[in-house]
Amino acid sequence: MTTGRALTALTRTLKPLDAYALAVGDDALIASHRLSEWLTRAPDLEEEVALANIALDQLGQARFLLGYAGRSSGLSEDELAYRRSDREYRNCLLAELPNGDFAHTVLRLLLFSAYQRQLYAGLGESADDELAAFAKKASVEVDYHYEYAVSWTLRLGDGTEESHDRMAAALEELWPYTAELFADDPLASGLSADGLVPEPERLHGPWMEQVTSVLAEATLGAAPSVNRRPGGGRAGLHTEALSYLLAEMQSVHRAHPGATW
Amino acid sequence: MTTGRALTALTRTLKPLDAYALAVGDDALIASHRLSEWLTRAPDLEEEVALANIALDQLGQARFLLGYAGRSSGLSEDELAYRRSDREYRNCLLAELPNGDFAHTVLRLLLFSAYQRQLYAGLGESADDELAAFAKKASVEVDYHYEYAVSWTLRLGDGTEESHDRMAAALEELWPYTAELFADDPLASGLSADGLVPEPERLHGPWMEQVTSVLAEATLGAAPSVNRRPGGGRAGLHTEALSYLLAEMQSVHRAHPGATW
Repeated sequence: MTTGRALTALTRTLKPLDAYALAVGDDALIASHRLSEWLTRAPDLEEEVALANIALDQLGQARFLLGYAGRSSGLSEDELAYRRSDREYRNCLLAELPNGDFAHTVLRLLLFSAYQRQLYAGLGESADDELAAFAKKASVEVDYHYEYAVSWTLRLGDGTEESHDRMAAALEELWPYTAELFADDPLASGLSADGLVPEPERLHGPWMEQVTSVLAEATLGAAPSVNRRPGGGRAGLHTEALSYLLAEMQSVHRAHPGATW
Repeated sequence: MTTGRALTALTRTLKPLDAYALAVGDDALIASHRLSEWLTRAPDLEEEVALANIALDQLGQARFLLGYAGRSSGLSEDELAYRRSDREYRNCLLAELPNGDFAHTVLRLLLFSAYQRQLYAGLGESADDELAAFAKKASVEVDYHYEYAVSWTLRLGDGTEESHDRMAAALEELWPYTAELFADDPLASGLSADGLVPEPERLHGPWMEQVTSVLAEATLGAAPSVNRRPGGGRAGLHTEALSYLLAEMQSVHRAHPGATW
Protein backbone atom coordinates (compact mmCIF):
# COMPACT_ATOMS: atom_id res chain seq x y z
CA MET A 1 0.00 0.00 0.00
CA THR A 2 1.17 3.48 -0.86
CA THR A 3 1.04 6.24 1.72
CA GLY A 4 -0.88 9.44 1.01
CA ARG A 5 2.30 11.43 0.57
CA ALA A 6 3.91 8.96 -1.83
CA LEU A 7 0.67 8.71 -3.81
CA THR A 8 0.61 12.46 -4.38
CA ALA A 9 4.12 12.35 -5.73
CA LEU A 10 3.31 9.42 -8.00
CA THR A 11 0.20 10.89 -9.56
CA ARG A 12 2.26 13.98 -10.41
CA THR A 13 4.75 11.87 -12.31
CA LEU A 14 2.35 9.74 -14.29
CA LYS A 15 3.25 9.32 -17.96
CA PRO A 16 1.22 11.70 -20.16
CA LEU A 17 -1.14 9.04 -21.53
CA ASP A 18 -1.70 7.66 -18.01
CA ALA A 19 -2.44 11.16 -16.72
CA TYR A 20 -4.90 11.64 -19.57
CA ALA A 21 -6.64 8.32 -18.81
CA LEU A 22 -6.85 9.37 -15.16
CA ALA A 23 -8.65 12.61 -16.03
CA VAL A 24 -11.13 10.86 -18.33
CA GLY A 25 -11.59 8.13 -15.72
CA ASP A 26 -12.20 10.71 -12.99
CA ASP A 27 -14.97 12.21 -15.13
CA ALA A 28 -16.67 8.80 -15.29
CA LEU A 29 -16.10 8.03 -11.60
CA ILE A 30 -17.54 11.30 -10.34
CA ALA A 31 -20.42 11.21 -12.83
CA SER A 32 -21.21 7.69 -11.65
CA HIS A 33 -21.33 8.78 -8.03
CA ARG A 34 -23.62 11.70 -8.69
CA LEU A 35 -26.01 9.36 -10.54
CA SER A 36 -25.79 6.83 -7.71
CA GLU A 37 -27.11 9.47 -5.35
CA TRP A 38 -30.45 9.15 -7.13
CA LEU A 39 -30.81 5.56 -6.00
CA THR A 40 -33.30 5.23 -3.18
CA ARG A 41 -34.75 8.61 -4.20
CA ALA A 42 -35.61 8.61 -7.90
CA PRO A 43 -39.03 9.90 -9.02
CA ASP A 44 -40.16 6.39 -10.01
CA LEU A 45 -38.92 2.82 -10.13
CA GLU A 46 -38.31 2.80 -13.88
CA GLU A 47 -36.04 5.86 -13.66
CA GLU A 48 -34.31 4.41 -10.64
CA VAL A 49 -33.37 1.33 -12.66
CA ALA A 50 -32.28 3.41 -15.66
CA LEU A 51 -30.13 5.79 -13.61
CA ALA A 52 -28.59 2.88 -11.72
CA ASN A 53 -27.66 1.18 -14.98
CA ILE A 54 -26.07 4.35 -16.32
CA ALA A 55 -24.17 4.82 -13.06
CA LEU A 56 -22.89 1.25 -13.30
CA ASP A 57 -21.72 1.77 -16.88
CA GLN A 58 -19.82 4.87 -15.81
CA LEU A 59 -18.33 3.05 -12.85
CA GLY A 60 -17.16 0.26 -15.13
CA GLN A 61 -15.54 2.80 -17.45
CA ALA A 62 -13.86 4.46 -14.47
CA ARG A 63 -12.49 1.13 -13.24
CA PHE A 64 -10.89 0.41 -16.60
CA LEU A 65 -9.44 3.89 -16.97
CA LEU A 66 -8.10 4.16 -13.41
CA GLY A 67 -6.62 0.69 -13.70
CA TYR A 68 -5.00 1.68 -16.99
CA ALA A 69 -3.74 4.98 -15.56
CA GLY A 70 -2.06 3.43 -12.53
CA ARG A 71 -0.69 0.22 -13.97
CA SER A 72 2.74 1.34 -15.08
CA SER A 73 3.24 3.14 -11.75
CA GLY A 74 2.08 0.21 -9.64
CA LEU A 75 -1.05 2.01 -8.41
CA SER A 76 -4.32 0.09 -8.15
CA GLU A 77 -7.73 1.42 -9.19
CA ASP A 78 -8.69 1.49 -5.50
CA GLU A 79 -5.65 3.50 -4.48
CA LEU A 80 -6.43 6.02 -7.18
CA ALA A 81 -10.15 6.18 -6.33
CA TYR A 82 -9.96 6.22 -2.57
CA ARG A 83 -6.64 7.69 -1.60
CA ARG A 84 -6.35 10.88 -3.59
CA SER A 85 -7.38 14.25 -2.21
CA ASP A 86 -9.62 16.60 -4.18
CA ARG A 87 -6.54 18.48 -5.42
CA GLU A 88 -5.38 15.26 -7.10
CA TYR A 89 -8.67 14.65 -8.88
CA ARG A 90 -8.70 15.64 -12.55
CA ASN A 91 -12.41 15.50 -13.43
CA CYS A 92 -14.20 18.37 -15.12
CA LEU A 93 -16.31 20.57 -12.84
CA LEU A 94 -19.48 19.67 -14.76
CA ALA A 95 -19.31 16.13 -13.37
CA GLU A 96 -18.99 17.15 -9.72
CA LEU A 97 -21.73 19.79 -9.36
CA PRO A 98 -24.43 18.75 -6.88
CA ASN A 99 -27.43 17.02 -8.39
CA GLY A 100 -30.18 19.56 -7.96
CA ASP A 101 -33.54 18.37 -9.25
CA PHE A 102 -34.30 15.72 -11.85
CA ALA A 103 -34.25 18.29 -14.67
CA HIS A 104 -30.74 19.25 -13.63
CA THR A 105 -29.63 15.61 -13.75
CA VAL A 106 -31.21 15.08 -17.16
CA LEU A 107 -29.60 18.16 -18.64
CA ARG A 108 -26.19 17.39 -17.21
CA LEU A 109 -26.44 13.87 -18.61
CA LEU A 110 -27.32 15.31 -22.02
CA LEU A 111 -24.31 17.65 -22.06
CA PHE A 112 -21.93 15.11 -20.56
CA SER A 113 -22.95 12.03 -22.55
CA ALA A 114 -22.86 14.03 -25.79
CA TYR A 115 -19.28 14.96 -24.85
CA GLN A 116 -18.34 11.38 -24.00
CA ARG A 117 -19.78 10.20 -27.32
CA GLN A 118 -17.43 12.49 -29.22
CA LEU A 119 -14.54 11.71 -26.91
CA TYR A 120 -14.89 7.94 -27.14
CA ALA A 121 -15.42 8.10 -30.91
CA GLY A 122 -12.07 9.88 -31.09
CA LEU A 123 -10.38 7.50 -28.65
CA GLY A 124 -11.67 4.58 -30.68
CA GLU A 125 -9.14 5.69 -33.33
CA SER A 126 -6.27 5.83 -30.83
CA ALA A 127 -2.88 4.41 -31.76
CA ASP A 128 -3.01 2.74 -28.34
CA ASP A 129 -4.84 -0.50 -29.09
CA GLU A 130 -6.03 -1.06 -25.55
CA LEU A 131 -7.55 2.41 -25.18
CA ALA A 132 -9.11 2.10 -28.64
CA ALA A 133 -10.75 -1.22 -27.76
CA PHE A 134 -12.05 0.22 -24.50
CA ALA A 135 -13.47 3.30 -26.22
CA LYS A 136 -15.33 1.25 -28.81
CA LYS A 137 -17.01 -0.78 -26.11
CA ALA A 138 -17.78 2.29 -23.99
CA SER A 139 -19.27 4.08 -27.01
CA VAL A 140 -22.13 1.60 -27.10
CA GLU A 141 -22.91 2.33 -23.45
CA VAL A 142 -22.68 6.09 -23.87
CA ASP A 143 -24.99 5.99 -26.88
CA TYR A 144 -27.64 4.61 -24.58
CA HIS A 145 -27.00 7.27 -21.92
CA TYR A 146 -27.33 9.94 -24.57
CA GLU A 147 -30.57 8.53 -25.93
CA TYR A 148 -31.98 8.37 -22.42
CA ALA A 149 -31.01 12.00 -21.79
CA VAL A 150 -32.42 13.13 -25.14
CA SER A 151 -35.78 11.48 -24.55
CA TRP A 152 -36.14 13.13 -21.11
CA THR A 153 -34.90 16.47 -22.40
CA LEU A 154 -37.62 16.46 -25.04
CA ARG A 155 -40.25 15.27 -22.60
CA LEU A 156 -39.46 17.85 -19.92
CA GLY A 157 -38.37 20.72 -22.17
CA ASP A 158 -41.48 20.44 -24.29
CA GLY A 159 -43.69 19.37 -21.37
CA THR A 160 -45.52 21.49 -18.84
CA GLU A 161 -44.63 25.08 -18.02
CA GLU A 162 -43.10 23.89 -14.76
CA SER A 163 -40.94 21.23 -16.42
CA HIS A 164 -39.86 23.64 -19.16
CA ASP A 165 -38.84 26.26 -16.60
CA ARG A 166 -36.83 23.75 -14.61
CA MET A 167 -34.99 22.59 -17.72
CA ALA A 168 -34.31 26.18 -18.75
CA ALA A 169 -32.92 26.94 -15.29
CA ALA A 170 -30.70 23.85 -15.43
CA LEU A 171 -29.41 24.90 -18.86
CA GLU A 172 -28.61 28.37 -17.59
CA GLU A 173 -26.70 26.95 -14.64
CA LEU A 174 -24.83 24.15 -16.39
CA TRP A 175 -23.95 25.59 -19.78
CA PRO A 176 -20.96 27.68 -18.60
CA TYR A 177 -19.30 24.50 -17.32
CA THR A 178 -19.19 22.93 -20.78
CA ALA A 179 -16.40 25.27 -21.91
CA GLU A 180 -13.93 23.34 -19.76
CA LEU A 181 -14.57 20.15 -21.72
CA PHE A 182 -13.13 21.64 -24.89
CA ALA A 183 -10.55 24.03 -23.46
CA ASP A 184 -7.03 24.05 -24.78
CA ASP A 185 -5.10 21.39 -22.87
CA PRO A 186 -1.33 20.97 -23.35
CA LEU A 187 -1.47 17.34 -22.19
CA ALA A 188 -4.13 16.32 -24.71
CA SER A 189 -2.57 18.40 -27.48
CA GLY A 190 0.74 16.62 -27.11
CA LEU A 191 -0.90 13.21 -27.12
CA SER A 192 -3.12 14.04 -30.07
CA ALA A 193 -0.07 14.94 -32.13
CA ASP A 194 0.98 11.31 -31.69
CA GLY A 195 -2.46 10.03 -32.67
CA LEU A 196 -3.15 8.73 -29.17
CA VAL A 197 -6.13 10.87 -28.18
CA PRO A 198 -8.47 13.31 -29.94
CA GLU A 199 -7.74 17.04 -29.81
CA PRO A 200 -10.31 18.50 -27.33
CA GLU A 201 -11.06 21.53 -29.53
CA ARG A 202 -11.99 19.31 -32.46
CA LEU A 203 -14.67 17.62 -30.40
CA HIS A 204 -16.46 20.91 -29.86
CA GLY A 205 -18.06 21.36 -33.31
CA PRO A 206 -19.86 18.01 -33.54
CA TRP A 207 -20.83 18.23 -29.85
CA MET A 208 -22.33 21.68 -30.32
CA GLU A 209 -24.28 20.60 -33.37
CA GLN A 210 -25.72 17.61 -31.57
CA VAL A 211 -26.65 19.41 -28.37
CA THR A 212 -28.13 22.54 -29.92
CA SER A 213 -30.39 20.53 -32.20
CA VAL A 214 -31.77 18.65 -29.18
CA LEU A 215 -32.24 21.89 -27.21
CA ALA A 216 -34.10 23.45 -30.13
CA GLU A 217 -36.40 20.47 -30.51
CA ALA A 218 -37.05 20.57 -26.77
CA THR A 219 -38.14 24.23 -27.14
CA LEU A 220 -35.27 25.30 -24.90
CA GLY A 221 -33.97 27.79 -27.43
CA ALA A 222 -30.41 28.35 -28.51
CA ALA A 223 -27.38 27.71 -26.36
CA PRO A 224 -27.06 30.45 -23.72
CA SER A 225 -24.42 33.03 -24.43
CA VAL A 226 -22.14 33.33 -21.43
CA ASN A 227 -19.01 35.13 -20.46
CA ARG A 228 -18.29 33.04 -17.39
CA ARG A 229 -16.26 29.91 -18.14
CA PRO A 230 -15.48 28.12 -14.87
CA GLY A 231 -12.61 25.66 -15.17
CA GLY A 232 -9.63 24.28 -13.34
CA GLY A 233 -10.87 20.76 -12.70
CA ARG A 234 -8.25 19.24 -15.00
CA ALA A 235 -5.61 20.98 -12.89
CA GLY A 236 -7.08 19.80 -9.58
CA LEU A 237 -8.91 23.02 -8.70
CA HIS A 238 -12.38 21.92 -7.71
CA THR A 239 -15.56 23.22 -6.13
CA GLU A 240 -16.34 22.52 -2.51
CA ALA A 241 -18.92 19.97 -3.67
CA LEU A 242 -16.19 17.53 -4.70
CA SER A 243 -14.72 17.53 -1.19
CA TYR A 244 -18.01 16.37 0.28
CA LEU A 245 -18.48 13.75 -2.42
CA LEU A 246 -15.00 12.34 -1.80
CA ALA A 247 -15.47 12.43 1.97
CA GLU A 248 -18.45 10.14 1.60
CA MET A 249 -16.99 7.94 -1.12
CA GLN A 250 -13.69 7.43 0.65
CA SER A 251 -14.92 7.13 4.24
CA VAL A 252 -15.24 3.34 4.40
CA HIS A 253 -12.05 2.60 2.51
CA ARG A 254 -10.01 5.08 4.55
CA ALA A 255 -11.41 3.75 7.82
CA HIS A 256 -10.02 0.35 6.85
CA PRO A 257 -6.92 1.08 4.78
CA GLY A 258 -5.81 -1.98 2.88
CA ALA A 259 -9.20 -3.50 3.72
CA THR A 260 -7.64 -6.56 5.28
CA TRP A 261 -10.24 -7.14 7.94
CA MET B 1 -53.90 8.59 -9.20
CA THR B 2 -55.18 7.13 -5.97
CA THR B 3 -55.26 9.18 -2.81
CA GLY B 4 -53.47 7.99 0.32
CA ARG B 5 -56.70 7.08 2.02
CA ALA B 6 -58.08 5.09 -0.90
CA LEU B 7 -54.78 3.30 -1.35
CA THR B 8 -54.81 2.09 2.25
CA ALA B 9 -58.25 0.67 1.76
CA LEU B 10 -57.25 -1.04 -1.48
CA THR B 11 -54.14 -2.74 -0.17
CA ARG B 12 -56.25 -4.16 2.65
CA THR B 13 -58.58 -5.77 0.15
CA LEU B 14 -56.02 -7.26 -2.21
CA LYS B 15 -56.74 -10.83 -3.30
CA PRO B 16 -54.69 -13.35 -1.28
CA LEU B 17 -52.20 -14.13 -4.03
CA ASP B 18 -51.74 -10.41 -4.74
CA ALA B 19 -51.17 -9.72 -1.04
CA TYR B 20 -48.60 -12.52 -0.97
CA ALA B 21 -46.80 -11.13 -4.03
CA LEU B 22 -46.78 -7.71 -2.36
CA ALA B 23 -45.05 -9.07 0.75
CA VAL B 24 -42.42 -10.93 -1.28
CA GLY B 25 -41.97 -7.87 -3.47
CA ASP B 26 -41.59 -5.63 -0.44
CA ASP B 27 -38.77 -7.89 0.78
CA ALA B 28 -36.96 -7.37 -2.52
CA LEU B 29 -37.66 -3.63 -2.66
CA ILE B 30 -36.40 -2.92 0.84
CA ALA B 31 -33.39 -5.23 0.43
CA SER B 32 -32.54 -3.42 -2.79
CA HIS B 33 -32.62 -0.06 -1.08
CA ARG B 34 -30.41 -1.14 1.78
CA LEU B 35 -27.86 -2.45 -0.75
CA SER B 36 -28.11 0.78 -2.74
CA GLU B 37 -27.00 2.68 0.33
CA TRP B 38 -23.56 1.11 -0.14
CA LEU B 39 -23.15 2.87 -3.45
CA THR B 40 -20.77 5.80 -3.19
CA ARG B 41 -19.38 4.25 0.01
CA ALA B 42 -18.36 0.64 -0.62
CA PRO B 43 -14.95 -0.57 0.60
CA ASP B 44 -13.64 -0.91 -2.96
CA LEU B 45 -14.76 -0.43 -6.55
CA GLU B 46 -15.22 -4.13 -7.26
CA GLU B 47 -17.59 -4.54 -4.30
CA GLU B 48 -19.40 -1.37 -5.27
CA VAL B 49 -20.14 -2.84 -8.70
CA ALA B 50 -21.16 -6.20 -7.22
CA LEU B 51 -23.49 -4.68 -4.62
CA ALA B 52 -25.01 -2.36 -7.21
CA ASN B 53 -25.74 -5.30 -9.50
CA ILE B 54 -27.37 -7.24 -6.69
CA ALA B 55 -29.42 -4.17 -5.72
CA LEU B 56 -30.56 -3.82 -9.34
CA ASP B 57 -31.60 -7.48 -9.51
CA GLN B 58 -33.65 -7.05 -6.35
CA LEU B 59 -35.20 -3.88 -7.68
CA GLY B 60 -36.17 -5.69 -10.87
CA GLN B 61 -37.79 -8.47 -8.85
CA ALA B 62 -39.64 -5.90 -6.77
CA ARG B 63 -40.94 -4.14 -9.87
CA PHE B 64 -42.39 -7.37 -11.25
CA LEU B 65 -43.93 -8.42 -7.94
CA LEU B 66 -45.44 -5.03 -7.11
CA GLY B 67 -46.77 -4.75 -10.63
CA TYR B 68 -48.30 -8.21 -10.31
CA ALA B 69 -49.72 -7.44 -6.87
CA GLY B 70 -51.46 -4.26 -7.93
CA ARG B 71 -52.67 -5.14 -11.39
CA SER B 72 -56.09 -6.57 -10.63
CA SER B 73 -56.80 -3.63 -8.30
CA GLY B 74 -55.63 -0.99 -10.75
CA LEU B 75 -52.60 0.02 -8.64
CA SER B 76 -49.30 0.73 -10.35
CA GLU B 77 -45.90 -0.39 -9.08
CA ASP B 78 -45.09 3.25 -8.33
CA GLU B 79 -48.24 3.78 -6.31
CA LEU B 80 -47.43 0.71 -4.26
CA ALA B 81 -43.77 1.65 -3.81
CA TYR B 82 -44.12 5.34 -3.11
CA ARG B 83 -47.54 5.91 -1.64
CA ARG B 84 -47.84 3.37 1.14
CA SER B 85 -46.98 4.18 4.74
CA ASP B 86 -44.76 1.91 6.80
CA ARG B 87 -47.84 0.24 8.30
CA GLU B 88 -48.82 -0.89 4.81
CA TYR B 89 -45.42 -2.41 4.02
CA ARG B 90 -45.27 -6.19 4.36
CA ASN B 91 -41.53 -6.90 4.21
CA CYS B 92 -39.75 -9.00 6.81
CA LEU B 93 -37.83 -7.08 9.47
CA LEU B 94 -34.54 -8.68 8.36
CA ALA B 95 -34.66 -6.68 5.13
CA GLU B 96 -35.18 -3.30 6.76
CA LEU B 97 -32.55 -3.30 9.53
CA PRO B 98 -29.93 -0.57 9.06
CA ASN B 99 -26.80 -1.65 7.21
CA GLY B 100 -24.15 -1.56 9.90
CA ASP B 101 -20.69 -2.50 8.65
CA PHE B 102 -19.75 -4.55 5.60
CA ALA B 103 -19.74 -7.79 7.64
CA HIS B 104 -23.35 -7.08 8.63
CA THR B 105 -24.31 -6.57 4.98
CA VAL B 106 -22.57 -9.77 3.92
CA LEU B 107 -24.21 -11.85 6.62
CA ARG B 108 -27.66 -10.42 5.97
CA LEU B 109 -27.24 -11.17 2.28
CA LEU B 110 -26.24 -14.74 3.13
CA LEU B 111 -29.33 -15.32 5.30
CA PHE B 112 -31.68 -13.48 2.97
CA SER B 113 -30.46 -14.85 -0.37
CA ALA B 114 -30.49 -18.40 1.02
CA TYR B 115 -34.12 -17.76 1.96
CA GLN B 116 -34.98 -16.33 -1.45
CA ARG B 117 -33.36 -19.33 -3.15
CA GLN B 118 -35.71 -21.70 -1.33
CA LEU B 119 -38.67 -19.39 -1.80
CA TYR B 120 -38.19 -18.94 -5.54
CA ALA B 121 -37.49 -22.65 -6.02
CA GLY B 122 -40.89 -23.27 -4.44
CA LEU B 123 -42.60 -20.51 -6.41
CA GLY B 124 -41.12 -21.95 -9.59
CA GLU B 125 -43.59 -24.83 -9.09
CA SER B 126 -46.56 -22.50 -8.61
CA ALA B 127 -49.84 -23.28 -10.31
CA ASP B 128 -49.81 -19.61 -11.34
CA ASP B 129 -47.84 -19.71 -14.58
CA GLU B 130 -46.79 -16.09 -14.47
CA LEU B 131 -45.41 -16.30 -10.93
CA ALA B 132 -43.68 -19.57 -11.77
CA ALA B 133 -41.97 -18.06 -14.81
CA PHE B 134 -40.88 -15.07 -12.78
CA ALA B 135 -39.48 -17.24 -9.99
CA LYS B 136 -37.44 -19.35 -12.39
CA LYS B 137 -35.81 -16.29 -13.83
CA ALA B 138 -35.24 -14.71 -10.42
CA SER B 139 -33.68 -17.95 -9.14
CA VAL B 140 -30.73 -17.50 -11.47
CA GLU B 141 -30.14 -14.01 -10.06
CA VAL B 142 -30.49 -15.09 -6.46
CA ASP B 143 -28.04 -17.96 -6.99
CA TYR B 144 -25.44 -15.35 -7.83
CA HIS B 145 -26.31 -13.24 -4.77
CA TYR B 146 -25.96 -16.30 -2.60
CA GLU B 147 -22.60 -17.26 -4.10
CA TYR B 148 -21.33 -13.74 -3.57
CA ALA B 149 -22.46 -13.79 0.08
CA VAL B 150 -20.95 -17.24 0.65
CA SER B 151 -17.57 -16.23 -0.73
CA TRP B 152 -17.41 -13.13 1.50
CA THR B 153 -18.72 -15.03 4.52
CA LEU B 154 -15.87 -17.53 4.15
CA ARG B 155 -13.31 -14.82 3.52
CA LEU B 156 -14.33 -12.67 6.49
CA GLY B 157 -15.40 -15.43 8.89
CA ASP B 158 -12.18 -17.36 8.37
CA GLY B 159 -10.07 -14.21 7.91
CA THR B 160 -8.43 -12.03 10.53
CA GLU B 161 -9.48 -11.89 14.18
CA GLU B 162 -11.12 -8.53 13.49
CA SER B 163 -13.10 -9.77 10.49
CA HIS B 164 -14.15 -12.93 12.34
CA ASP B 165 -15.37 -10.94 15.32
CA ARG B 166 -17.36 -8.59 13.13
CA MET B 167 -19.03 -11.51 11.35
CA ALA B 168 -19.77 -13.19 14.69
CA ALA B 169 -21.35 -9.97 15.98
CA ALA B 170 -23.45 -9.66 12.83
CA LEU B 171 -24.62 -13.26 13.20
CA GLU B 172 -25.60 -12.68 16.81
CA GLU B 173 -27.59 -9.60 15.86
CA LEU B 174 -29.28 -10.88 12.71
CA TRP B 175 -30.07 -14.50 13.49
CA PRO B 176 -33.17 -13.82 15.63
CA TYR B 177 -34.76 -12.07 12.66
CA THR B 178 -34.68 -15.20 10.51
CA ALA B 179 -37.50 -16.81 12.50
CA GLU B 180 -39.99 -14.46 10.89
CA LEU B 181 -39.15 -15.80 7.42
CA PHE B 182 -40.51 -19.24 8.27
CA ALA B 183 -43.22 -18.35 10.76
CA ASP B 184 -46.68 -19.77 10.40
CA ASP B 185 -48.62 -17.49 8.05
CA PRO B 186 -52.33 -18.02 7.40
CA LEU B 187 -52.12 -16.24 4.04
CA ALA B 188 -49.31 -18.45 2.71
CA SER B 189 -50.83 -21.59 4.20
CA GLY B 190 -54.09 -21.02 2.37
CA LEU B 191 -52.32 -20.36 -0.91
CA SER B 192 -50.01 -23.34 -0.52
CA ALA B 193 -53.01 -25.63 -0.12
CA ASP B 194 -53.95 -24.58 -3.66
CA GLY B 195 -50.42 -25.20 -4.95
CA LEU B 196 -49.85 -21.50 -5.58
CA VAL B 197 -46.97 -20.80 -3.17
CA PRO B 198 -44.64 -22.88 -0.99
CA GLU B 199 -45.51 -23.45 2.66
CA PRO B 200 -43.13 -21.17 4.64
CA GLU B 201 -42.37 -23.83 7.25
CA ARG B 202 -41.23 -26.29 4.60
CA LEU B 203 -38.58 -23.86 3.41
CA HIS B 204 -36.94 -23.87 6.81
CA GLY B 205 -35.19 -27.27 6.73
CA PRO B 206 -33.28 -26.83 3.46
CA TRP B 207 -32.47 -23.21 4.36
CA MET B 208 -31.08 -24.23 7.74
CA GLU B 209 -28.96 -26.96 6.21
CA GLN B 210 -27.50 -24.61 3.63
CA VAL B 211 -26.78 -21.74 6.01
CA THR B 212 -25.34 -23.77 8.87
CA SER B 213 -22.90 -25.57 6.60
CA VAL B 214 -21.60 -22.21 5.33
CA LEU B 215 -21.33 -20.84 8.89
CA ALA B 216 -19.39 -23.91 9.98
CA GLU B 217 -16.99 -23.67 7.08
CA ALA B 218 -16.51 -19.96 7.86
CA THR B 219 -15.53 -20.96 11.44
CA LEU B 220 -18.53 -19.05 12.76
CA GLY B 221 -19.78 -22.04 14.73
CA ALA B 222 -23.32 -23.33 14.96
CA ALA B 223 -26.42 -21.21 14.58
CA PRO B 224 -26.96 -19.11 17.72
CA SER B 225 -29.65 -20.38 20.02
CA VAL B 226 -32.05 -17.56 20.76
CA ASN B 227 -35.30 -17.02 22.58
CA ARG B 228 -36.06 -13.68 21.04
CA ARG B 229 -37.95 -13.94 17.73
CA PRO B 230 -38.82 -10.43 16.51
CA GLY B 231 -41.59 -10.41 13.94
CA GLY B 232 -44.60 -8.48 12.77
CA GLY B 233 -43.26 -7.18 9.46
CA ARG B 234 -45.72 -9.26 7.47
CA ALA B 235 -48.53 -7.58 9.42
CA GLY B 236 -47.14 -4.07 8.90
CA LEU B 237 -45.48 -3.70 12.30
CA HIS B 238 -42.01 -2.40 11.53
CA THR B 239 -38.97 -0.95 13.22
CA GLU B 240 -38.33 2.76 13.19
CA ALA B 241 -35.60 2.15 10.59
CA LEU B 242 -38.21 1.48 7.88
CA SER B 243 -39.83 4.87 8.45
CA TYR B 244 -36.55 6.64 7.70
CA LEU B 245 -35.89 4.47 4.67
CA LEU B 246 -39.35 5.21 3.26
CA ALA B 247 -39.04 8.91 4.02
CA GLU B 248 -35.96 9.06 1.84
CA MET B 249 -37.22 6.72 -0.86
CA GLN B 250 -40.58 8.44 -1.19
CA SER B 251 -39.50 12.06 -0.81
CA VAL B 252 -39.06 12.91 -4.50
CA HIS B 253 -42.12 11.06 -5.69
CA ARG B 254 -44.33 12.55 -2.99
CA ALA B 255 -43.03 16.06 -3.66
CA HIS B 256 -44.26 15.67 -7.24
CA PRO B 257 -47.30 13.40 -7.03
CA GLY B 258 -48.19 12.08 -10.43
CA ALA B 259 -44.82 13.34 -11.63
CA THR B 260 -46.35 15.29 -14.46
CA TRP B 261 -43.87 18.12 -14.49
